[in-house]
Amino acid sequence: MPDPAPPLCARLGVVGVGLIGGSVARRARAAWPGVRLSGVDDAATIARAIDAGVIDEGYASLEGLRRADLIVLAAPIPAVVALLGEVADLGLTCLVTDVGSTKRTVMAASRRTGVRRFVGGHPMAGAERGGFSSARADLFEGRPWAIVPGEADEQDVAFVSAFVRGLGAIPKRTNAEEHDRAVAFVSHLPQLIAIGLAGAAMEGGGPMAVELAGQGMESMTRLAASSPDLWAGILDSNADQVREALAVFTGILERASIGSGDVAALRAMFGQASAWREALGEARGRGEGPAA
Amino acid sequence: MPDPAPPLCARLGVVGVGLIGGSVARRARAAWPGVRLSGVDDAATIARAIDAGVIDEGYASLEGLRRADLIVLAAPIPAVVALLGEVADLGLTCLVTDVGSTKRTVMAASRRTGVRRFVGGHPMAGAERGGFSSARADLFEGRPWAIVPGEADEQDVAFVSAFVRGLGAIPKRTNAEEHDRAVAFVSHLPQLIAIGLAGAAMEGGGPMAVELAGQGMESMTRLAASSPDLWAGILDSNADQVREALAVFTGILERASIGSGDVAALRAMFGQASAWREALGEARGRGEGPAA
Repeated sequence: MPDPAPPLCARLGVVGVGLIGGSVARRARAAWPGVRLSGVDDAATIARAIDAGVIDEGYASLEGLRRADLIVLAAPIPAVVALLGEVADLGLTCLVTDVGSTKRTVMAASRRTGVRRFVGGHPMAGAERGGFSSARADLFEGRPWAIVPGEADEQDVAFVSAFVRGLGAIPKRTNAEEHDRAVAFVSHLPQLIAIGLAGAAMEGGGPMAVELAGQGMESMTRLAASSPDLWAGILDSNADQVREALAVFTGILERASIGSGDVAALRAMFGQASAWREALGEARGRGEGPAA
Repeated sequence: MPDPAPPLCARLGVVGVGLIGGSVARRARAAWPGVRLSGVDDAATIARAIDAGVIDEGYASLEGLRRADLIVLAAPIPAVVALLGEVADLGLTCLVTDVGSTKRTVMAASRRTGVRRFVGGHPMAGAERGGFSSARADLFEGRPWAIVPGEADEQDVAFVSAFVRGLGAIPKRTNAEEHDRAVAFVSHLPQLIAIGLAGAAMEGGGPMAVELAGQGMESMTRLAASSPDLWAGILDSNADQVREALAVFTGILERASIGSGDVAALRAMFGQASAWREALGEARGRGEGPAA
Protein backbone atom coordinates (compact mmCIF):
# COMPACT_ATOMS: atom_id res chain seq x y z
CA MET A 1 0.00 0.00 0.00
CA PRO A 2 1.53 3.35 -1.00
CA ASP A 3 2.16 5.90 1.74
CA PRO A 4 0.80 9.30 0.70
CA ALA A 5 2.53 11.95 2.76
CA PRO A 6 1.68 14.39 4.21
CA PRO A 7 -1.69 13.30 5.64
CA LEU A 8 -4.44 15.04 3.71
CA CYS A 9 -6.38 16.24 6.70
CA ALA A 10 -6.44 16.06 10.47
CA ARG A 11 -10.03 14.90 10.94
CA LEU A 12 -12.07 12.74 8.59
CA GLY A 13 -15.78 12.13 9.09
CA VAL A 14 -17.56 9.17 7.50
CA VAL A 15 -21.36 9.22 7.52
CA GLY A 16 -22.67 5.67 7.13
CA VAL A 17 -20.13 3.06 8.26
CA GLY A 18 -21.41 0.25 6.04
CA LEU A 19 -19.73 -1.54 3.13
CA ILE A 20 -18.54 1.62 1.37
CA GLY A 21 -18.09 3.96 4.34
CA GLY A 22 -16.48 1.21 6.39
CA SER A 23 -14.08 0.43 3.55
CA VAL A 24 -13.22 4.14 3.22
CA ALA A 25 -12.50 4.25 6.96
CA ARG A 26 -10.46 1.02 6.96
CA ARG A 27 -8.31 2.19 4.06
CA ALA A 28 -7.96 5.76 5.39
CA ARG A 29 -6.78 4.35 8.73
CA ALA A 30 -4.13 2.27 6.97
CA ALA A 31 -3.10 5.03 4.53
CA TRP A 32 -3.01 7.93 7.02
CA PRO A 33 -2.48 6.59 10.56
CA GLY A 34 -2.33 10.12 11.99
CA VAL A 35 -5.81 11.14 10.86
CA ARG A 36 -8.59 11.17 13.47
CA LEU A 37 -11.57 9.20 12.18
CA SER A 38 -15.16 9.92 13.20
CA GLY A 39 -18.18 7.89 12.13
CA VAL A 40 -21.88 8.64 12.06
CA ASP A 41 -24.21 5.63 12.21
CA ASP A 42 -26.47 3.73 14.61
CA ALA A 43 -25.00 2.90 18.03
CA ALA A 44 -24.43 -0.81 17.29
CA THR A 45 -22.47 -0.13 14.09
CA ILE A 46 -20.44 2.61 15.80
CA ALA A 47 -19.58 0.22 18.64
CA ARG A 48 -18.41 -2.46 16.22
CA ALA A 49 -16.35 0.00 14.17
CA ILE A 50 -14.66 1.39 17.31
CA ASP A 51 -14.02 -2.16 18.58
CA ALA A 52 -12.43 -3.00 15.25
CA GLY A 53 -10.18 0.06 15.58
CA VAL A 54 -11.54 1.45 12.33
CA ILE A 55 -12.85 4.72 13.79
CA ASP A 56 -11.83 6.67 16.87
CA GLU A 57 -15.26 7.94 17.84
CA GLY A 58 -18.83 7.85 16.64
CA TYR A 59 -21.97 9.95 16.64
CA ALA A 60 -25.65 9.56 15.94
CA SER A 61 -25.83 12.68 13.78
CA LEU A 62 -23.79 15.07 11.65
CA GLU A 63 -23.47 17.45 14.60
CA GLY A 64 -20.62 15.32 15.85
CA LEU A 65 -18.56 16.24 12.77
CA ARG A 66 -18.30 20.02 13.37
CA ARG A 67 -14.50 19.81 13.55
CA ALA A 68 -13.98 17.54 10.52
CA ASP A 69 -11.88 18.74 7.55
CA LEU A 70 -13.48 16.30 5.12
CA ILE A 71 -16.85 14.56 5.39
CA VAL A 72 -17.69 11.52 3.24
CA LEU A 73 -21.43 10.92 2.87
CA ALA A 74 -21.54 7.13 2.39
CA ALA A 75 -25.26 6.57 2.14
CA PRO A 76 -27.93 5.73 -0.47
CA ILE A 77 -29.11 8.56 -2.75
CA PRO A 78 -32.20 9.68 -0.77
CA ALA A 79 -30.12 9.77 2.44
CA VAL A 80 -27.32 11.76 0.75
CA VAL A 81 -29.90 14.34 -0.37
CA ALA A 82 -31.22 14.63 3.20
CA LEU A 83 -27.68 14.82 4.63
CA LEU A 84 -26.76 17.70 2.31
CA GLY A 85 -29.71 19.59 3.81
CA GLU A 86 -28.36 18.89 7.29
CA VAL A 87 -24.85 20.04 6.29
CA ALA A 88 -26.41 23.33 5.16
CA ASP A 89 -28.62 23.66 8.23
CA LEU A 90 -25.67 23.09 10.56
CA GLY A 91 -23.63 25.64 8.60
CA LEU A 92 -20.72 23.20 8.19
CA THR A 93 -18.02 24.77 6.03
CA CYS A 94 -15.68 21.82 5.59
CA LEU A 95 -15.21 19.97 2.30
CA VAL A 96 -17.92 17.35 1.65
CA THR A 97 -18.01 14.47 -0.83
CA ASP A 98 -20.34 11.51 -1.34
CA VAL A 99 -20.34 8.01 -2.82
CA GLY A 100 -23.87 7.97 -4.28
CA SER A 101 -24.54 5.76 -7.30
CA THR A 102 -26.05 8.52 -9.45
CA LYS A 103 -24.92 12.11 -9.62
CA ARG A 104 -27.59 14.41 -11.15
CA THR A 105 -29.88 14.17 -8.10
CA VAL A 106 -27.02 14.65 -5.66
CA MET A 107 -25.43 17.59 -7.52
CA ALA A 108 -28.84 19.26 -7.77
CA ALA A 109 -29.30 18.82 -4.02
CA SER A 110 -25.91 20.40 -3.32
CA ARG A 111 -26.87 23.43 -5.44
CA ARG A 112 -30.35 23.66 -3.91
CA THR A 113 -29.10 23.43 -0.33
CA GLY A 114 -26.20 25.78 -1.01
CA VAL A 115 -23.51 23.32 0.10
CA ARG A 116 -20.78 24.92 -2.00
CA ARG A 117 -17.71 22.99 -0.88
CA PHE A 118 -19.14 19.79 -2.33
CA VAL A 119 -17.45 17.43 -4.82
CA GLY A 120 -19.56 14.50 -6.00
CA GLY A 121 -17.98 11.06 -6.01
CA HIS A 122 -18.85 7.49 -6.94
CA PRO A 123 -16.54 4.50 -6.43
CA MET A 124 -17.19 1.76 -9.01
CA ALA A 125 -16.78 -0.98 -6.44
CA GLY A 126 -19.12 -3.04 -4.33
CA ALA A 127 -19.78 -6.47 -2.96
CA GLU A 128 -22.70 -8.89 -2.83
CA ARG A 129 -23.18 -8.26 0.87
CA GLY A 130 -23.41 -4.81 2.40
CA GLY A 131 -22.75 -3.66 5.96
CA PHE A 132 -19.69 -2.89 8.04
CA SER A 133 -18.82 -6.57 8.38
CA SER A 134 -18.17 -6.71 4.61
CA ALA A 135 -15.97 -3.58 4.58
CA ARG A 136 -12.42 -4.13 3.31
CA ALA A 137 -9.40 -1.83 3.08
CA ASP A 138 -8.75 -3.01 -0.50
CA LEU A 139 -12.31 -2.62 -1.83
CA PHE A 140 -11.33 0.32 -4.07
CA GLU A 141 -7.90 -0.93 -5.15
CA GLY A 142 -7.47 -0.22 -8.85
CA ARG A 143 -11.17 0.57 -9.31
CA PRO A 144 -12.46 3.71 -11.05
CA TRP A 145 -13.91 6.44 -8.80
CA ALA A 146 -15.95 9.11 -10.58
CA ILE A 147 -15.22 12.69 -9.48
CA VAL A 148 -17.92 15.27 -10.28
CA PRO A 149 -16.70 18.82 -9.50
CA GLY A 150 -20.00 20.65 -9.91
CA GLU A 151 -19.39 24.20 -8.67
CA ALA A 152 -16.49 23.32 -6.40
CA ASP A 153 -13.13 25.13 -6.44
CA GLU A 154 -10.30 23.37 -8.26
CA GLN A 155 -8.42 23.12 -4.98
CA ASP A 156 -11.25 21.10 -3.40
CA VAL A 157 -11.53 18.91 -6.51
CA ALA A 158 -7.81 18.22 -6.33
CA PHE A 159 -8.14 17.38 -2.63
CA VAL A 160 -10.92 14.82 -3.18
CA SER A 161 -9.02 13.32 -6.14
CA ALA A 162 -5.92 12.90 -4.00
CA PHE A 163 -8.07 11.42 -1.23
CA VAL A 164 -9.60 8.69 -3.44
CA ARG A 165 -6.17 7.99 -4.95
CA GLY A 166 -4.98 7.45 -1.38
CA LEU A 167 -7.79 4.90 -0.98
CA GLY A 168 -6.32 2.95 -3.90
CA ALA A 169 -8.89 4.08 -6.48
CA ILE A 170 -8.40 5.73 -9.87
CA PRO A 171 -10.16 9.12 -10.03
CA LYS A 172 -12.11 9.74 -13.25
CA ARG A 173 -13.24 13.33 -13.66
CA THR A 174 -16.63 13.72 -15.30
CA ASN A 175 -19.90 15.62 -14.97
CA ALA A 176 -23.26 14.48 -13.59
CA GLU A 177 -24.94 13.97 -16.98
CA GLU A 178 -22.02 12.04 -18.51
CA HIS A 179 -21.69 9.97 -15.32
CA ASP A 180 -25.37 9.05 -15.09
CA ARG A 181 -25.48 8.04 -18.75
CA ALA A 182 -22.37 5.89 -18.41
CA VAL A 183 -23.49 4.10 -15.22
CA ALA A 184 -26.93 3.45 -16.74
CA PHE A 185 -25.07 1.28 -19.28
CA VAL A 186 -22.28 -0.24 -17.17
CA SER A 187 -23.92 -0.57 -13.77
CA HIS A 188 -27.72 -0.23 -13.78
CA LEU A 189 -28.37 -2.15 -17.01
CA PRO A 190 -26.13 -5.07 -15.88
CA GLN A 191 -27.99 -5.14 -12.56
CA LEU A 192 -31.40 -5.32 -14.25
CA ILE A 193 -30.15 -7.93 -16.70
CA ALA A 194 -28.73 -10.13 -13.95
CA ILE A 195 -32.08 -10.31 -12.17
CA GLY A 196 -34.00 -10.60 -15.44
CA LEU A 197 -31.79 -13.49 -16.54
CA ALA A 198 -32.17 -15.43 -13.29
CA GLY A 199 -35.91 -14.68 -13.32
CA ALA A 200 -36.26 -15.89 -16.91
CA ALA A 201 -34.54 -19.19 -16.06
CA MET A 202 -36.91 -19.51 -13.08
CA GLU A 203 -39.98 -18.78 -15.20
CA GLY A 204 -39.20 -20.64 -18.39
CA GLY A 205 -36.10 -22.81 -18.11
CA GLY A 206 -37.72 -25.82 -16.48
CA PRO A 207 -36.15 -27.93 -13.71
CA MET A 208 -33.20 -28.90 -15.92
CA ALA A 209 -32.09 -25.23 -16.19
CA VAL A 210 -30.73 -25.16 -12.67
CA GLU A 211 -29.07 -28.57 -13.15
CA LEU A 212 -27.27 -27.51 -16.32
CA ALA A 213 -26.34 -23.92 -15.47
CA GLY A 214 -22.61 -23.42 -15.99
CA GLN A 215 -20.09 -20.85 -14.87
CA GLY A 216 -21.21 -18.24 -17.40
CA MET A 217 -24.73 -18.27 -15.96
CA GLU A 218 -23.38 -18.21 -12.42
CA SER A 219 -21.23 -15.15 -12.99
CA MET A 220 -23.93 -13.37 -15.00
CA THR A 221 -26.53 -13.70 -12.25
CA ARG A 222 -24.22 -12.93 -9.29
CA LEU A 223 -25.51 -9.33 -9.06
CA ALA A 224 -28.99 -10.73 -8.37
CA ALA A 225 -28.02 -11.01 -4.69
CA SER A 226 -27.98 -7.20 -4.30
CA SER A 227 -30.49 -5.32 -2.14
CA PRO A 228 -33.79 -4.48 -3.90
CA ASP A 229 -34.41 -1.42 -1.72
CA LEU A 230 -30.99 0.07 -2.42
CA TRP A 231 -31.55 -0.56 -6.13
CA ALA A 232 -35.04 0.89 -6.17
CA GLY A 233 -33.51 4.21 -5.06
CA ILE A 234 -30.68 4.05 -7.57
CA LEU A 235 -32.89 3.16 -10.55
CA ASP A 236 -35.47 5.76 -9.56
CA SER A 237 -32.85 8.53 -9.50
CA ASN A 238 -31.66 7.58 -13.00
CA ALA A 239 -34.89 6.31 -14.56
CA ASP A 240 -34.64 8.24 -17.86
CA GLN A 241 -31.11 7.03 -18.59
CA VAL A 242 -31.87 3.46 -17.52
CA ARG A 243 -34.90 3.33 -19.82
CA GLU A 244 -32.72 4.66 -22.65
CA ALA A 245 -30.05 2.02 -21.94
CA LEU A 246 -32.70 -0.72 -21.89
CA ALA A 247 -34.01 0.48 -25.25
CA VAL A 248 -30.54 0.43 -26.84
CA PHE A 249 -29.92 -3.03 -25.39
CA THR A 250 -33.20 -4.61 -26.50
CA GLY A 251 -32.74 -2.99 -29.93
CA ILE A 252 -29.44 -4.84 -30.30
CA LEU A 253 -31.03 -8.15 -29.26
CA GLU A 254 -33.76 -7.64 -31.89
CA ARG A 255 -31.12 -7.01 -34.55
CA ALA A 256 -29.65 -10.45 -33.81
CA SER A 257 -32.72 -11.84 -35.66
CA ILE A 258 -32.28 -15.30 -34.17
CA GLY A 259 -33.37 -18.05 -36.53
CA SER A 260 -33.37 -15.85 -39.63
CA GLY A 261 -30.09 -17.39 -40.78
CA ASP A 262 -28.65 -13.85 -40.91
CA VAL A 263 -25.17 -14.72 -39.69
CA ALA A 264 -23.90 -11.30 -40.76
CA ALA A 265 -26.10 -9.55 -38.16
CA LEU A 266 -24.87 -11.88 -35.43
CA ARG A 267 -21.27 -11.43 -36.51
CA ALA A 268 -21.70 -7.63 -36.40
CA MET A 269 -23.07 -7.93 -32.83
CA PHE A 270 -20.12 -10.04 -31.75
CA GLY A 271 -17.74 -7.60 -33.45
CA GLN A 272 -19.24 -4.60 -31.67
CA ALA A 273 -19.05 -6.41 -28.33
CA SER A 274 -15.45 -7.46 -28.90
CA ALA A 275 -14.47 -3.90 -29.78
CA TRP A 276 -15.93 -2.66 -26.52
CA ARG A 277 -14.22 -5.39 -24.50
CA GLU A 278 -10.92 -4.38 -26.10
CA ALA A 279 -11.51 -0.74 -25.19
CA LEU A 280 -12.28 -1.88 -21.64
CA GLY A 281 -9.03 -3.83 -21.47
CA GLU A 282 -7.11 -0.80 -22.74
CA ALA A 283 -8.79 1.50 -20.20
CA ARG A 284 -7.82 -0.89 -17.39
CA GLY A 285 -4.28 -1.28 -18.67
CA ARG A 286 -3.93 2.48 -19.00
CA GLY A 287 -4.84 2.99 -15.35
CA GLU A 288 -5.32 6.58 -14.35
CA GLY A 289 -5.47 7.93 -17.88
CA PRO A 290 -5.89 11.47 -19.13
CA ALA A 291 -9.35 11.85 -17.64
CA ALA A 292 -8.15 11.60 -14.05
CA MET B 1 -8.20 -37.00 -9.43
CA PRO B 2 -10.14 -40.22 -8.73
CA ASP B 3 -8.92 -43.44 -10.34
CA PRO B 4 -11.84 -45.26 -11.95
CA ALA B 5 -10.94 -48.92 -12.39
CA PRO B 6 -11.19 -50.92 -14.54
CA PRO B 7 -10.53 -48.79 -17.62
CA LEU B 8 -13.79 -48.27 -19.44
CA CYS B 9 -12.55 -49.25 -22.86
CA ALA B 10 -9.41 -50.25 -24.71
CA ARG B 11 -9.54 -47.68 -27.52
CA LEU B 12 -11.02 -44.21 -27.37
CA GLY B 13 -11.45 -42.06 -30.47
CA VAL B 14 -11.85 -38.28 -30.23
CA VAL B 15 -13.03 -36.46 -33.35
CA GLY B 16 -12.01 -32.81 -33.14
CA VAL B 17 -9.04 -32.25 -30.82
CA GLY B 18 -9.87 -28.66 -29.90
CA LEU B 19 -10.85 -27.16 -26.55
CA ILE B 20 -13.47 -29.80 -25.69
CA GLY B 21 -12.04 -32.82 -27.51
CA GLY B 22 -8.52 -31.97 -26.35
CA SER B 23 -9.74 -31.65 -22.76
CA VAL B 24 -11.55 -35.00 -23.03
CA ALA B 25 -8.34 -36.58 -24.30
CA ARG B 26 -6.14 -34.94 -21.65
CA ARG B 27 -8.40 -36.07 -18.83
CA ALA B 28 -8.94 -39.57 -20.29
CA ARG B 29 -5.17 -39.99 -20.53
CA ALA B 30 -4.79 -39.06 -16.87
CA ALA B 31 -7.80 -41.10 -15.69
CA TRP B 32 -7.17 -44.25 -17.70
CA PRO B 33 -3.47 -44.49 -18.61
CA GLY B 34 -3.95 -47.88 -20.31
CA VAL B 35 -6.47 -46.64 -22.88
CA ARG B 36 -5.21 -46.12 -26.43
CA LEU B 37 -6.22 -42.65 -27.63
CA SER B 38 -6.81 -41.80 -31.29
CA GLY B 39 -7.62 -38.35 -32.61
CA VAL B 40 -9.19 -37.11 -35.82
CA ASP B 41 -8.32 -33.56 -36.86
CA ASP B 42 -6.13 -31.63 -39.29
CA ALA B 43 -2.48 -32.71 -39.53
CA ALA B 44 -1.11 -29.75 -37.57
CA THR B 45 -3.43 -30.30 -34.61
CA ILE B 46 -2.76 -34.04 -34.62
CA ALA B 47 0.99 -33.39 -34.60
CA ARG B 48 0.68 -31.01 -31.64
CA ALA B 49 -1.55 -33.42 -29.69
CA ILE B 50 0.85 -36.32 -30.28
CA ASP B 51 3.82 -34.14 -29.30
CA ALA B 52 2.01 -33.21 -26.10
CA GLY B 53 1.48 -36.91 -25.37
CA VAL B 54 -2.28 -36.39 -25.30
CA ILE B 55 -3.10 -38.85 -28.09
CA ASP B 56 -1.23 -41.89 -29.39
CA GLU B 57 -2.11 -41.54 -33.03
CA GLY B 58 -4.12 -39.36 -35.34
CA TYR B 59 -6.13 -39.52 -38.54
CA ALA B 60 -7.64 -37.19 -41.08
CA SER B 61 -10.99 -39.00 -41.10
CA LEU B 62 -13.27 -41.33 -39.14
CA GLU B 63 -11.93 -44.31 -41.07
CA GLY B 64 -8.99 -44.38 -38.69
CA LEU B 65 -11.32 -45.17 -35.80
CA ARG B 66 -12.58 -48.57 -37.04
CA ARG B 67 -11.19 -50.31 -33.96
CA ALA B 68 -12.38 -47.79 -31.34
CA ASP B 69 -14.74 -48.88 -28.54
CA LEU B 70 -16.02 -45.38 -27.92
CA ILE B 71 -15.99 -42.39 -30.26
CA VAL B 72 -16.51 -38.84 -28.96
CA LEU B 73 -17.67 -36.41 -31.65
CA ALA B 74 -16.25 -33.12 -30.33
CA ALA B 75 -17.33 -30.75 -33.09
CA PRO B 76 -19.86 -27.98 -33.73
CA ILE B 77 -23.46 -29.02 -34.43
CA PRO B 78 -23.34 -29.04 -38.27
CA ALA B 79 -20.13 -31.10 -38.17
CA VAL B 80 -21.62 -33.58 -35.68
CA VAL B 81 -24.58 -34.09 -38.03
CA ALA B 82 -22.22 -34.76 -40.94
CA LEU B 83 -20.06 -37.07 -38.81
CA LEU B 84 -23.09 -39.17 -37.81
CA GLY B 85 -23.69 -39.72 -41.54
CA GLU B 86 -20.07 -40.86 -41.93
CA VAL B 87 -20.38 -43.22 -38.93
CA ALA B 88 -23.39 -44.81 -40.66
CA ASP B 89 -21.71 -44.94 -44.09
CA LEU B 90 -18.62 -46.60 -42.63
CA GLY B 91 -20.82 -49.12 -40.79
CA LEU B 92 -19.09 -48.41 -37.47
CA THR B 93 -20.81 -50.38 -34.69
CA CYS B 94 -19.01 -48.96 -31.64
CA LEU B 95 -20.64 -46.69 -29.10
CA VAL B 96 -20.73 -43.02 -30.17
CA THR B 97 -21.37 -39.86 -28.14
CA ASP B 98 -21.07 -36.14 -28.89
CA VAL B 99 -20.57 -32.83 -27.09
CA GLY B 100 -22.83 -30.65 -29.24
CA SER B 101 -24.42 -27.60 -27.62
CA THR B 102 -27.99 -28.45 -28.64
CA LYS B 103 -29.52 -31.89 -28.73
CA ARG B 104 -32.71 -32.00 -30.86
CA THR B 105 -30.81 -31.59 -34.15
CA VAL B 106 -28.18 -34.14 -33.17
CA MET B 107 -30.64 -36.74 -31.86
CA ALA B 108 -32.71 -36.36 -35.04
CA ALA B 109 -29.57 -36.91 -37.12
CA SER B 110 -28.73 -40.08 -35.18
CA ARG B 111 -32.24 -41.43 -35.87
CA ARG B 112 -32.15 -40.39 -39.54
CA THR B 113 -28.73 -41.91 -40.19
CA GLY B 114 -29.54 -45.06 -38.23
CA VAL B 115 -26.61 -44.70 -35.81
CA ARG B 116 -28.28 -46.71 -33.05
CA ARG B 117 -25.49 -46.94 -30.51
CA PHE B 118 -25.54 -43.20 -29.95
CA VAL B 119 -25.89 -41.35 -26.63
CA GLY B 120 -26.09 -37.57 -26.87
CA GLY B 121 -23.92 -35.53 -24.54
CA HIS B 122 -23.23 -31.90 -23.67
CA PRO B 123 -20.63 -30.75 -21.13
CA MET B 124 -21.58 -27.41 -19.53
CA ALA B 125 -18.03 -26.15 -19.64
CA GLY B 126 -16.02 -23.96 -21.93
CA ALA B 127 -13.41 -21.26 -22.10
CA GLU B 128 -13.00 -17.91 -23.78
CA ARG B 129 -10.44 -19.31 -26.21
CA GLY B 130 -10.97 -22.47 -28.21
CA GLY B 131 -8.43 -24.80 -29.79
CA PHE B 132 -6.17 -27.56 -28.53
CA SER B 133 -3.83 -25.09 -26.84
CA SER B 134 -6.63 -24.15 -24.42
CA ALA B 135 -7.52 -27.78 -23.58
CA ARG B 136 -7.19 -28.68 -19.88
CA ALA B 137 -7.56 -31.97 -18.01
CA ASP B 138 -9.71 -30.24 -15.37
CA LEU B 139 -12.08 -28.41 -17.75
CA PHE B 140 -15.04 -30.60 -16.75
CA GLU B 141 -14.26 -30.94 -13.04
CA GLY B 142 -17.49 -30.61 -11.09
CA ARG B 143 -19.40 -29.30 -14.12
CA PRO B 144 -22.75 -30.70 -15.26
CA TRP B 145 -22.70 -32.89 -18.40
CA ALA B 146 -26.09 -33.54 -20.01
CA ILE B 147 -26.70 -37.15 -21.07
CA VAL B 148 -29.45 -37.70 -23.67
CA PRO B 149 -30.17 -41.43 -24.13
CA GLY B 150 -32.42 -41.19 -27.19
CA GLU B 151 -32.94 -44.77 -28.41
CA ALA B 152 -29.75 -46.14 -26.88
CA ASP B 153 -29.65 -49.27 -24.68
CA GLU B 154 -29.41 -48.66 -20.94
CA GLN B 155 -26.03 -50.36 -20.93
CA ASP B 156 -24.62 -47.82 -23.39
CA VAL B 157 -26.18 -44.95 -21.42
CA ALA B 158 -24.54 -46.25 -18.25
CA PHE B 159 -21.22 -46.53 -20.10
CA VAL B 160 -21.29 -42.91 -21.29
CA SER B 161 -22.38 -41.72 -17.83
CA ALA B 162 -19.46 -43.55 -16.23
CA PHE B 163 -17.15 -42.12 -18.88
CA VAL B 164 -18.11 -38.48 -18.20
CA ARG B 165 -17.92 -39.13 -14.45
CA GLY B 166 -14.38 -40.36 -15.07
CA LEU B 167 -13.68 -37.02 -16.79
CA GLY B 168 -14.66 -35.27 -13.55
CA ALA B 169 -18.12 -34.15 -14.73
CA ILE B 170 -21.54 -34.71 -13.17
CA PRO B 171 -23.87 -36.57 -15.56
CA LYS B 172 -27.41 -35.14 -15.76
CA ARG B 173 -29.83 -37.40 -17.60
CA THR B 174 -32.40 -35.56 -19.69
CA ASN B 175 -34.07 -35.59 -23.10
CA ALA B 176 -33.43 -33.43 -26.16
CA GLU B 177 -36.45 -31.14 -25.69
CA GLU B 178 -35.86 -30.53 -21.99
CA HIS B 179 -32.15 -29.97 -22.65
CA ASP B 180 -32.65 -27.51 -25.47
CA ARG B 181 -35.17 -25.50 -23.45
CA ALA B 182 -32.87 -25.38 -20.42
CA VAL B 183 -29.76 -24.33 -22.35
CA ALA B 184 -31.73 -21.65 -24.20
CA PHE B 185 -32.17 -20.01 -20.77
CA VAL B 186 -28.85 -20.78 -19.06
CA SER B 187 -26.41 -20.75 -21.98
CA HIS B 188 -27.77 -19.17 -25.17
CA LEU B 189 -29.62 -16.28 -23.53
CA PRO B 190 -26.59 -15.35 -21.34
CA GLN B 191 -24.42 -15.39 -24.46
CA LEU B 192 -26.75 -13.05 -26.37
CA ILE B 193 -27.09 -10.79 -23.34
CA ALA B 194 -23.34 -10.54 -22.87
CA ILE B 195 -22.82 -9.30 -26.41
CA GLY B 196 -25.93 -7.12 -26.28
CA LEU B 197 -24.73 -5.50 -23.06
CA ALA B 198 -21.23 -4.74 -24.37
CA GLY B 199 -22.77 -3.51 -27.63
CA ALA B 200 -25.20 -1.23 -25.80
CA ALA B 201 -22.36 0.34 -23.79
CA MET B 202 -20.50 0.85 -27.08
CA GLU B 203 -23.52 2.41 -28.79
CA GLY B 204 -24.98 4.52 -26.01
CA GLY B 205 -22.74 4.68 -22.95
CA GLY B 206 -20.42 7.41 -24.17
CA PRO B 207 -16.65 7.55 -23.60
CA MET B 208 -17.07 7.55 -19.79
CA ALA B 209 -18.75 4.10 -19.88
CA VAL B 210 -15.49 2.31 -20.53
CA GLU B 211 -13.70 4.41 -17.90
CA LEU B 212 -16.25 3.64 -15.18
CA ALA B 213 -17.04 -0.02 -15.95
CA GLY B 214 -16.56 -2.11 -12.81
CA GLN B 215 -16.14 -5.80 -12.08
CA GLY B 216 -19.84 -6.58 -12.55
CA MET B 217 -19.73 -5.27 -16.12
CA GLU B 218 -16.46 -7.07 -16.78
CA SER B 219 -17.78 -10.45 -15.70
CA MET B 220 -21.11 -9.93 -17.44
CA THR B 221 -19.51 -9.23 -20.82
CA ARG B 222 -16.77 -11.88 -20.63
CA LEU B 223 -18.73 -14.27 -22.89
CA ALA B 224 -18.55 -11.63 -25.63
CA ALA B 225 -15.13 -13.01 -26.57
CA SER B 226 -16.67 -16.25 -27.90
CA SER B 227 -16.60 -17.22 -31.57
CA PRO B 228 -19.47 -15.75 -33.66
CA ASP B 229 -19.37 -18.60 -36.18
CA LEU B 230 -19.64 -21.28 -33.50
CA TRP B 231 -22.54 -19.37 -31.94
CA ALA B 232 -24.34 -18.82 -35.23
CA GLY B 233 -24.58 -22.61 -35.55
CA ILE B 234 -25.69 -23.11 -31.94
CA LEU B 235 -28.36 -20.40 -32.02
CA ASP B 236 -29.61 -21.54 -35.40
CA SER B 237 -30.12 -25.10 -34.15
CA ASN B 238 -32.15 -23.83 -31.16
CA ALA B 239 -33.80 -20.74 -32.65
CA ASP B 240 -37.35 -21.44 -31.43
CA GLN B 241 -36.28 -21.96 -27.82
CA VAL B 242 -33.89 -19.00 -27.88
CA ARG B 243 -36.63 -16.69 -29.18
CA GLU B 244 -38.90 -17.98 -26.41
CA ALA B 245 -36.22 -17.36 -23.76
CA LEU B 246 -35.64 -13.84 -25.12
CA ALA B 247 -39.38 -13.15 -24.91
CA VAL B 248 -39.58 -14.31 -21.28
CA PHE B 249 -36.51 -12.24 -20.42
CA THR B 250 -37.65 -9.01 -22.07
CA GLY B 251 -41.09 -9.51 -20.50
CA ILE B 252 -39.47 -9.50 -17.06
CA LEU B 253 -37.49 -6.34 -17.86
CA GLU B 254 -40.70 -4.60 -18.94
CA ARG B 255 -42.38 -5.61 -15.69
CA ALA B 256 -39.63 -3.75 -13.80
CA SER B 257 -41.40 -0.55 -14.97
CA ILE B 258 -38.36 1.61 -14.26
CA GLY B 259 -39.26 5.11 -13.15
CA SER B 260 -42.88 4.27 -12.30
CA GLY B 261 -42.05 4.28 -8.61
CA ASP B 262 -43.44 0.72 -8.45
CA VAL B 263 -40.96 -0.66 -5.93
CA ALA B 264 -43.13 -3.76 -5.42
CA ALA B 265 -42.54 -4.89 -9.02
CA LEU B 266 -38.81 -4.42 -8.63
CA ARG B 267 -38.81 -6.23 -5.30
CA ALA B 268 -40.71 -9.15 -6.88
CA MET B 269 -38.08 -9.33 -9.65
CA PHE B 270 -35.25 -9.40 -7.12
CA GLY B 271 -37.11 -12.04 -5.09
CA GLN B 272 -37.58 -14.28 -8.13
CA ALA B 273 -33.92 -13.92 -9.05
CA SER B 274 -32.76 -14.67 -5.52
CA ALA B 275 -34.92 -17.78 -5.38
CA TRP B 276 -33.33 -19.06 -8.56
CA ARG B 277 -29.81 -18.28 -7.32
CA GLU B 278 -30.61 -20.26 -4.15
CA ALA B 279 -31.82 -23.21 -6.21
CA LEU B 280 -28.61 -22.99 -8.22
CA GLY B 281 -26.53 -23.05 -5.04
CA GLU B 282 -28.45 -26.08 -3.80
CA ALA B 283 -28.04 -27.91 -7.11
CA ARG B 284 -24.27 -27.30 -6.98
CA GLY B 285 -24.05 -28.34 -3.33
CA ARG B 286 -26.04 -31.48 -4.05
CA GLY B 287 -23.56 -32.54 -6.71
CA GLU B 288 -24.69 -35.50 -8.76
CA GLY B 289 -28.28 -35.40 -7.55
CA PRO B 290 -31.17 -37.68 -8.38
CA ALA B 291 -31.21 -36.76 -12.08
CA ALA B 292 -27.80 -38.31 -12.80
